[in-house]
Amino acid sequence: MKVADPLPPGSRVGILGGGQLARMLSLAAARLGIDCHIYAPEAHSPAFAVSAARTIAAYDDFAALEGFARAVDVVTYEFENVPGDTAGFLDRFVPVAPGVAALKTAQDRIAEKTFIDGLGIPVAPFAEVSDTATLERALSRIGTPAVLKTRRFGYDGKGQTKIHPGADPDAAFAEIGRQPAILEGFVAFEKEISVIAARSWSGEVAVYDVPENHHEHHILKTSTVPASIPADVAEKARGFGGRIIAALDYVGVIGVEMFVAGGDVVVNEIAPRVHNSGHWTMDACHVSQFEQHIRAICGWPLGAPDRHSDVVMTNLLGDEIGRWCELAAEPAVHIHLYGKAEARRGRKMGHFNRLTPRQP
Amino acid sequence: MKVADPLPPGSRVGILGGGQLARMLSLAAARLGIDCHIYAPEAHSPAFAVSAARTIAAYDDFAALEGFARAVDVVTYEFENVPGDTAGFLDRFVPVAPGVAALKTAQDRIAEKTFIDGLGIPVAPFAEVSDTATLERALSRIGTPAVLKTRRFGYDGKGQTKIHPGADPDAAFAEIGRQPAILEGFVAFEKEISVIAARSWSGEVAVYDVPENHHEHHILKTSTVPASIPADVAEKARGFGGRIIAALDYVGVIGVEMFVAGGDVVVNEIAPRVHNSGHWTMDACHVSQFEQHIRAICGWPLGAPDRHSDVVMTNLLGDEIGRWCELAAEPAVHIHLYGKAEARRGRKMGHFNRLTPRQP
Repeated sequence: MKVADPLPPGSRVGILGGGQLARMLSLAAARLGIDCHIYAPEAHSPAFAVSAARTIAAYDDFAALEGFARAVDVVTYEFENVPGDTAGFLDRFVPVAPGVAALKTAQDRIAEKTFIDGLGIPVAPFAEVSDTATLERALSRIGTPAVLKTRRFGYDGKGQTKIHPGADPDAAFAEIGRQPAILEGFVAFEKEISVIAARSWSGEVAVYDVPENHHEHHILKTSTVPASIPADVAEKARGFGGRIIAALDYVGVIGVEMFVAGGDVVVNEIAPRVHNSGHWTMDACHVSQFEQHIRAICGWPLGAPDRHSDVVMTNLLGDEIGRWCELAAEPAVHIHLYGKAEARRGRKMGHFNRLTPRQP
Repeated sequence: MKVADPLPPGSRVGILGGGQLARMLSLAAARLGIDCHIYAPEAHSPAFAVSAARTIAAYDDFAALEGFARAVDVVTYEFENVPGDTAGFLDRFVPVAPGVAALKTAQDRIAEKTFIDGLGIPVAPFAEVSDTATLERALSRIGTPAVLKTRRFGYDGKGQTKIHPGADPDAAFAEIGRQPAILEGFVAFEKEISVIAARSWSGEVAVYDVPENHHEHHILKTSTVPASIPADVAEKARGFGGRIIAALDYVGVIGVEMFVAGGDVVVNEIAPRVHNSGHWTMDACHVSQFEQHIRAICGWPLGAPDRHSDVVMTNLLGDEIGRWCELAAEPAVHIHLYGKAEARRGRKMGHFNRLTPRQP
């Protein structure tokens, strides 16, 4: 189903998932006079405290899903691991954005890589792995170092392992739980960047400036805008983002992670949702990625993705949230805390954006 | 009671009143990881949809007030007409900010004018009015044109009438309901401006840049920053705001409405709360007046009130909310809608901030 006319203020957006991304979507929707209804299995979800309605139920509770679908005007999600059956079921009652086809492509690393490669956009060499024998054949073709990843359900470095020269393929396959997998050639990148883009039901596309991302232990630590890359590389990356979102017939905000290697841009992976490397847009742009996503799925005009300031976004992981008071004392620092009770190691507890005047 | 140490993320702010100011306070608090508990008599309050908890009860329901007070870490309010008994009662259980004394001063136009005059800050000539006879004496001293206002409970031009030369004093007194009143000399002003200031429990003060305000039918229509006034006039106004908030021993954000007349600054009135003429801070400053108020009452460091952009704030009154889609299509326009169902004539339904790069 589709949203034909812009949903007026007072409409309801349903969100699958109740974490910090849903929370920030809900806050952005509220500014536009739009109410959010959160659907999540966890009784203490960070998004509940800022949302008009909630359903606490499992993602395969189809009776609860139907009630949820009938209570809202459009459904979206904050994470890519929504079961395909769930999204397909909801789509019988209410528009779902991004759509089921785009979700399925992004959920399967083989489908994702095949899709991007089919657009003529560079990706790392890859091969399907189903057992130790196929892994050995893939390694002989792609070489080492390489990265073995589960086909589905990976994030923040979970479900993946690097294979160094001389390593035991069977041990590597065991390490990721002997699941259907993909072997990817290791890209010796100079920079990690990403593109945050949005597309509306009518096909309008808006692409933000390119952040340069720095990870620690596979978890995003900082995003810096502008990235210290040549202008033509940034434009190439934005162009890839725009082509991918259009080819997916995608509605909403997408995050596309990329590498800069040897002056070229290689796409790493797609996240079919608002993305941690777009959190800088909350304070450095007129329209944040969260507002942009709400605008897109509700059929509103997209906002111009212009950036009024330079910015560094820093994640607060685990007990780094203890810095809140010191950060609050710094000028031009915008603090965002997620309302999570327990500061587990590596858990995303909040982030802050440090703004500086935009350099010409 | 006072807040001694900064309230950590996860703390609860109680807000009396559930309108758009409470809603925007709640959204700002959420960004800091602080939950809001709204106390309001109306079952459909705009703030409910974005707040962690609610109490629907009358402001003189002391059992409900006690339960509310015990559930939160600090109490504030979004409107100046909180009954003094209510604030005083809550203060027995939990810190209340702004405090009861400041609230009482701001609630009574005679006390307010006497207080400001006592600081040596210019106010319009004024006199207490209790009946037609005292009104006649006041008119003979102050002259016409003059403005007759109820001492208490006035806002947006309600409870006031202008007295022109030759008008019948008794008819004017009847028009405001023969309530205890104040007669104020009419100030032939060139500009209406205001000062939005904040003060913390420790006495730290932050004052925003001065907006120039334009009213239609006694309701704020636009605030423009910077105001087109000389720099020394703006500094004088900010200085008055700073002196008033300090002398009131005030904690939180205050709005002080002023006139510019003959190159001088005359204080018109105090609003002991976040103020409509400060809504431009939401998008043109690093820290909005709403976040600043939450910081102040929670004992956090105040944010620097720096402004990164020039801005015009425009209220959307009544059916002007119908402009939402056209405004959404404009670049550099930030839309804020309040989630009110019924667009009654003159009702504040939302506002938008149009940003332009800051001029040196």
